[in-house]
Amino acid sequence: MPNAVVKIGFLGLGVVGAELLNIIRSNQARILDKYGVKLEVSKIFVRDLNKKRDTDTSELQLTTNAADIIFDKDIHIVCECMGGAGTENTKEFVISALENSKSVVMSSKKVLALYGKKILDLASSSSAQLRFDATVGGGIPVAKILKECFKGEKVEKIVGILNATSNFIYTKMEKDNLSFEDALKKAQQLGYAENDPSEDINGFDALYKSIILTMFSMKKWLNIKELSTTPIGNITVLDMKYANELGYKIKPLVIMENQDDKLKYRVGPCLINENHIAANTVENYNIIVFKGSNTGVLGFYGQGAGSKPTASAMFDDLISIATTPDEGISGLIKEMYSGVEPTENVYEYKNNLYWRVSVENIVGKLAFICSLLADNSVNIEKVIQKDEAEGKIGVVLLTSRVDSSTLSKIVDQFTNNDIEINTIIPFLGE
Amino acid sequence: MPNAVVKIGFLGLGVVGAELLNIIRSNQARILDKYGVKLEVSKIFVRDLNKKRDTDTSELQLTTNAADIIFDKDIHIVCECMGGAGTENTKEFVISALENSKSVVMSSKKVLALYGKKILDLASSSSAQLRFDATVGGGIPVAKILKECFKGEKVEKIVGILNATSNFIYTKMEKDNLSFEDALKKAQQLGYAENDPSEDINGFDALYKSIILTMFSMKKWLNIKELSTTPIGNITVLDMKYANELGYKIKPLVIMENQDDKLKYRVGPCLINENHIAANTVENYNIIVFKGSNTGVLGFYGQGAGSKPTASAMFDDLISIATTPDEGISGLIKEMYSGVEPTENVYEYKNNLYWRVSVENIVGKLAFICSLLADNSVNIEKVIQKDEAEGKIGVVLLTSRVDSSTLSKIVDQFTNNDIEINTIIPFLGE
Repeated sequence: MPNAVVKIGFLGLGVVGAELLNIIRSNQARILDKYGVKLEVSKIFVRDLNKKRDTDTSELQLTTNAADIIFDKDIHIVCECMGGAGTENTKEFVISALENSKSVVMSSKKVLALYGKKILDLASSSSAQLRFDATVGGGIPVAKILKECFKGEKVEKIVGILNATSNFIYTKMEKDNLSFEDALKKAQQLGYAENDPSEDINGFDALYKSIILTMFSMKKWLNIKELSTTPIGNITVLDMKYANELGYKIKPLVIMENQDDKLKYRVGPCLINENHIAANTVENYNIIVFKGSNTGVLGFYGQGAGSKPTASAMFDDLISIATTPDEGISGLIKEMYSGVEPTENVYEYKNNLYWRVSVENIVGKLAFICSLLADNSVNIEKVIQKDEAEGKIGVVLLTSRVDSSTLSKIVDQFTNNDIEINTIIPFLGE
Repeated sequence: MPNAVVKIGFLGLGVVGAELLNIIRSNQARILDKYGVKLEVSKIFVRDLNKKRDTDTSELQLTTNAADIIFDKDIHIVCECMGGAGTENTKEFVISALENSKSVVMSSKKVLALYGKKILDLASSSSAQLRFDATVGGGIPVAKILKECFKGEKVEKIVGILNATSNFIYTKMEKDNLSFEDALKKAQQLGYAENDPSEDINGFDALYKSIILTMFSMKKWLNIKELSTTPIGNITVLDMKYANELGYKIKPLVIMENQDDKLKYRVGPCLINENHIAANTVENYNIIVFKGSNTGVLGFYGQGAGSKPTASAMFDDLISIATTPDEGISGLIKEMYSGVEPTENVYEYKNNLYWRVSVENIVGKLAFICSLLADNSVNIEKVIQKDEAEGKIGVVLLTSRVDSSTLSKIVDQFTNNDIEINTIIPFLGE
């Protein structure tokens, strides 16, 4: 296909779209020279024609009607940069584009996590390509990596830090002693967190990404309605200090354990050995660590958010499609998607627990705590007393794993006996 | 190509070869099912027909003549698992195989680093494929990753830990207080170091890998004769302690800085900020951190050595070739190799320095040291006195960078004035 023109439509022109446009412009000549492909951005769907943009739009055709792009016979590739705007709309646009044989580069993780089964089924039977590497891990090319490796083995486990905002907040708490609230404010000031940070701090953003990751690495499709997350906001600087004293860090983790007939998962704070590579992934960085039977542990580290890394990932996807226009379903999707099955057997990841409780007066309480745990066959590995503010006494307990019903029983009894439970989170196991 | 048979020949059947054979055997059915390709290992070149093997060879055709494989018209793919055996032989075998239109999966980094220009030129003009992901980073699929990403940008910098043995030794020194010699012994006991460890501890192994990495990520071909390394054995546990006190770790690093008209490099021990992801890469793990203009920093972490990860990387390469038999030069090599040019402008990486010197008596010496450095326009950022064994006094100095001729002048003057220089190593900069 010498000097083919590839026409591109954009859905959305926020910070990621503007950055993608900049990258396309500054690489147009090189891509033409290297691949014989002329990239041409022809139309851009926006909601407000008069909004001031971070990029020059004087020579672009802006439209407030997405159909102008989706039904334009000349457009080959649609870049979806809708950000958080209208999940339902985004889904419909992506589906229509694929139905109209346009290849799509997606960036909306939420849409892919919620409607991925439908979108991927459609893409699998289409002659168009679908790529979505920007949806997980920002600039980390995790979909491309997974397409190329682990061919001789199963991905047994994923341990990841997938939400940059949460990791940034925990880093500021641990290193600068900021409270959760102050660390969140700092993240907002720096543009790492949205004004409404709930998708990040409640773990939904990480959950969306885990669903996508699990799909293309473990071939299991998870129904978001059956999953839950643990918000990151219940952890305090005190917990981080105690964890550090024990040789651990507290990190906003995603854990996915792939077992033959079931999947165990957790999205939320965990204690992780201080030598683990994810324990040392700080600031706004992401890491995704896969465990395979032969390759062993493989970790992929990079900036998980930000317009530049995300746009850069989309650009790589765009070039992959533009340079293999006839690849169709034989490309990424077939490889990623073949054998993916919805899975029902999804369980919470369980392991040893870290507890931090407060009592007014330790006399008698410690014996009560220990005997209650023993009565429930919970093994105590360590008990540490800590002086806390306001005359309270903190007790840190490291115990064996506890099943859910026993846990609620213990929690009730603690509460009934004036033992305030501050934190219960699991350790990441081997 | 439905149910095509792909015949495979092995050059070498050491630990990696045996492991590769095991992976092929245990995946044969799955690969046939998934790709319609029947993998068939037909002949294996070995040096000793009677040697006991780690794998069942009863149904294999072993030969002591590599030509039986290279000139066998039925063999499609040659897996080179020669290990450290005979660089010259390995080079000739790989070249002959490519000349005879056989695709080759290479594992010998030394051969690729020394003769890569010739081998890659040949592969570029051949209809066969050449893949070599096992040569760098063991199980880390770094060649595949680089083929797929950084399409919109230049790789500006690489910081890597590429030699698993050295990293293991430094980890044992830092965490377990072992001397270099004891840590090396431990590495040998565990099979992480060879009986003759010189390629590892003198930095040659890391240098070979850097040459390959630089070629396919920075498009610069380095002539090994113009490069040098700094052995890791001159660092002591004391240096590690002092570095830790300053907020740094000492790591066996590869640094490659890609500037328009030149390349700056270092292969050897460096001080690295304790928060850097490579500072936290321990034991026998490798990491390769790339810096690009848009994606920012991307790091790839995994087991850099060992027969399983290496064989697993070779298996991925093998499947890539077997499933795209007609790709030829349009595949990995073209992408990786197009635009690679030999580069002459190669300079040592320079940055601020850490010095550790010993003196018998500090009186007068400290003033001498400071004035000598000042006379040579070397800025001292920090001077720390340390009591050392045998009544000696240690002085740790952090200084600005020093050019080579000034450095030798200072070293001479220190030596002439009974100031014993124990360590001079650079910091890794931003």
